[in-house]
Amino acid sequence: MKSKFLKEGRFFLKQGKNVLVLSLVLLLSGALFAAGTMEQSPGATAQASQVDGTAKYVFLFIGDGMATPQINAAESYANAKVSDDVNVQHLRFSQFPVVGLTTTYDAGSLITDSASAGTAIATGNKTLSGVINMDVGKTVAYKTIAEYAKEQGKKVGVVSSVSIDHATPACFYAKVPSRGNMYDIAVQLTESGFDYFGGGGFAQPTGKKKDQQNILGIAKSAGFTYVNTVDAFNALKPGVGKVVAVNERLQDSAAMPYEIDRKEGELSLADYNAKGIELLSDDPDGFFMMVESGKIDWAGHANDAGASIRDTLAFDEAIGKAIAFANKHPKDTLIIVTGDHETGGMTIGFAGTKYTTFFNEVAKQTMSFTAFGQEVLAPYKAQIQASGKKAQLSDLLPAIEQAFGMDFNALTKVQQNELEIAFERSMGNKMIKAQVEDLYLLYGGYEPLIIKITQITNQQAGIGWTTYSHTGVPVATFARGVGQELFQGYYDNTDIFDKMMVAMGIEKTAN
Amino acid sequence: MKSKFLKEGRFFLKQGKNVLVLSLVLLLSGALFAAGTMEQSPGATAQASQVDGTAKYVFLFIGDGMATPQINAAESYANAKVSDDVNVQHLRFSQFPVVGLTTTYDAGSLITDSASAGTAIATGNKTLSGVINMDVGKTVAYKTIAEYAKEQGKKVGVVSSVSIDHATPACFYAKVPSRGNMYDIAVQLTESGFDYFGGGGFAQPTGKKKDQQNILGIAKSAGFTYVNTVDAFNALKPGVGKVVAVNERLQDSAAMPYEIDRKEGELSLADYNAKGIELLSDDPDGFFMMVESGKIDWAGHANDAGASIRDTLAFDEAIGKAIAFANKHPKDTLIIVTGDHETGGMTIGFAGTKYTTFFNEVAKQTMSFTAFGQEVLAPYKAQIQASGKKAQLSDLLPAIEQAFGMDFNALTKVQQNELEIAFERSMGNKMIKAQVEDLYLLYGGYEPLIIKITQITNQQAGIGWTTYSHTGVPVATFARGVGQELFQGYYDNTDIFDKMMVAMGIEKTAN
Repeated sequence: MKSKFLKEGRFFLKQGKNVLVLSLVLLLSGALFAAGTMEQSPGATAQASQVDGTAKYVFLFIGDGMATPQINAAESYANAKVSDDVNVQHLRFSQFPVVGLTTTYDAGSLITDSASAGTAIATGNKTLSGVINMDVGKTVAYKTIAEYAKEQGKKVGVVSSVSIDHATPACFYAKVPSRGNMYDIAVQLTESGFDYFGGGGFAQPTGKKKDQQNILGIAKSAGFTYVNTVDAFNALKPGVGKVVAVNERLQDSAAMPYEIDRKEGELSLADYNAKGIELLSDDPDGFFMMVESGKIDWAGHANDAGASIRDTLAFDEAIGKAIAFANKHPKDTLIIVTGDHETGGMTIGFAGTKYTTFFNEVAKQTMSFTAFGQEVLAPYKAQIQASGKKAQLSDLLPAIEQAFGMDFNALTKVQQNELEIAFERSMGNKMIKAQVEDLYLLYGGYEPLIIKITQITNQQAGIGWTTYSHTGVPVATFARGVGQELFQGYYDNTDIFDKMMVAMGIEKTAN
Repeated sequence: MKSKFLKEGRFFLKQGKNVLVLSLVLLLSGALFAAGTMEQSPGATAQASQVDGTAKYVFLFIGDGMATPQINAAESYANAKVSDDVNVQHLRFSQFPVVGLTTTYDAGSLITDSASAGTAIATGNKTLSGVINMDVGKTVAYKTIAEYAKEQGKKVGVVSSVSIDHATPACFYAKVPSRGNMYDIAVQLTESGFDYFGGGGFAQPTGKKKDQQNILGIAKSAGFTYVNTVDAFNALKPGVGKVVAVNERLQDSAAMPYEIDRKEGELSLADYNAKGIELLSDDPDGFFMMVESGKIDWAGHANDAGASIRDTLAFDEAIGKAIAFANKHPKDTLIIVTGDHETGGMTIGFAGTKYTTFFNEVAKQTMSFTAFGQEVLAPYKAQIQASGKKAQLSDLLPAIEQAFGMDFNALTKVQQNELEIAFERSMGNKMIKAQVEDLYLLYGGYEPLIIKITQITNQQAGIGWTTYSHTGVPVATFARGVGQELFQGYYDNTDIFDKMMVAMGIEKTAN
């Protein structure tokens, strides 16, 4: 192995002058830290560095709600699928050469939301939860990394598995006081001049009150080609101009289906990334593309590890498209993968399973909590209401076993009891007031039966959760390619903006 | 800032030839990854690298049970103590220039114990939980990094805040089929030829059956100076020879007190590290020193964030001693900080507090769960037994408020109810069988009242836990100094051994 390494090393020395110059500058910063001049934070060092070789093609992948537990759960699951050995099957992005840790607190809380986190990453500024690219007073608008990239001549793409007007994608093209103003966000999308929007659709296409001009008409007037079928998507070719590509099937809140629910022939996040590469890479100034996996977060809120893991693996597939591109353009490409925050307080360990895990249990799950609600529970409720029969948990046990691999008889008495109570609550039956309970702690506002199924399924696998909200733990940031060294160390999410600017060789000119 | 950076950069170029050569080799490995030759894991790359400047002084700090949530909780707490701003007050070690992520699974489970984790770090080999430096068949013994360092002429120190024959410290000098054989471990300590052992005492000084020769006599016969008072410790000077320094006060299982319980004038982990530096640094070949903060783990098992956070801060203080030393020997020193696994499934987020945290609540805690048990609950139980009076939770509420800052009246009805039930259980009162319950899930084998107090205190602060055991999430590894670049990326705990070997310029010669 040593000789191969050295051979390739010599090859690289000949080919990679720019990277060498960059690296020399960067190693100085590392050496300075080693020498004990610790006043500068890694973020500040990134600012001070001069990057000679700049990144022409920049991919920013954001796993919404994805921190180390989500990544490790996906790797543990992937291994459980291929081998009985105790091991982890690494994802593509976890093996990037540079890893950093990133704090995510916002201006109002240690626990950020996606709007303030997206603002931090996209503009380098802290703001309050719910605010998109504006200051805490909601009067000053911030310039985004995507706008800087556009000014530099790059094409810009924004992809998300949730609605394209959702907080994280919005942070790359919109400035609004509240993430809930999704129609305003969508209008700003059409005014952005960006080149490619793909994935989910519009959550408020005619406004909150449904009294506005349809956003699709506005987009077409602004020169966008709009497609919403697989065939039309596949037919998109370079030269088509500005594109809004919405998934043919939208599962919930204008989002693409969870990966676990995706059917044969339906487009994946990787397809949307690959199409973005195909459409944007003809620009001599390169491109900036943000790709969000938004439902890792939604699965986390619902404590559904099976859905979270499959979406994390699909995210890695999408990143694979960027790696393939980078392998063709190694001196010009930078790939960054990060999370905006952790969701759910997920961990690989549950009190009831102690030191063991059973990821093969997760593999038995065949649909998300959302699909179970839409395709199993809702029809059952309708059937009960129509027939007037008494609802019984036993009616649903076969469907629950098929969807989640849960064998009711194998559960502990405590788990069986919890499931029965949750079923009665979901069916609206009168409950015997047996004990002092906090319903939010038990169900987090979700359908009681479904959240209890996901929690018990996870517990059986040895996966624990602490909340239905986000958490404040740091996320991991991975980098590969031109400027990768900028992303090492432990820094804040606002530093990601600064590091991307340095990697692209852009000077900051605005808020 | 830029001009200062460049000035110091030039200075370093003149002074730091070895580091420069090292860094050139290392940047090649990074560049190779960037160029797309991804077959090699970062661990393999470390093996292949040739390090010209080797680390003469190596510090390995292991936070037992410490992963990113524990670190972030300590930083959030530290900030809450100094400022109302939402922010994190960084620890010394989290700002090291290089951060890596490290998987911790062992040969039998995704969730390791400290014995198999210590074996991985100290020898580069995976083994089963409970096994110290032997293979899964418990016949082959492995050579430890500390033994390699000793062969190289270095002095060796082993420091721990828990008993010095506990699994983690044992992994640097002993080889036994079971971590429970603590007397065998201690005997091997006396045979190690290592130079400095400090911190906790011996858990089985005369063996499990208390029928063996006292280990202190054996240690003295082997040429060790034994001290167990603050005064004798402070009097230790270079030239004293081999030392076993046991803390004057041992709180539980021969461990030093939790930092939160440490009294004025008692030695800290930082004192033990500083003394190690003082005694070992006269060796022309340098030293290898392992310093473990063992009670971050113990606090995690008991879901006691207040104790965990204070021990993490004390760990950082101890690391500060190494940083001060490194600043005097920048070209010769490597400091590594890692965790052996996460404990408790800790996170910064609890369902009941949603997106808010209250770390100021943690600051109100004045003693560990252990001290509360020893100093409050045990005397109260004795008093109840002696007096024959009926135990009432109200008797203890003032002491609970003083120890944990918990205002019973401010709790939710659910929390009050949980606390009352736990109190009855702790006092051995007959319980009305009100509901189906899993007592292990509720209390994890701990004193019900105390674990419920720590859990509720943590919940009030917005800190959640999922288990009383370890978890399988990756830990963070930080590095600073000669060879720091070896520790970037996402690698396995066995790779830490390989990287330390490369950093010290040692060739592997045994299992």
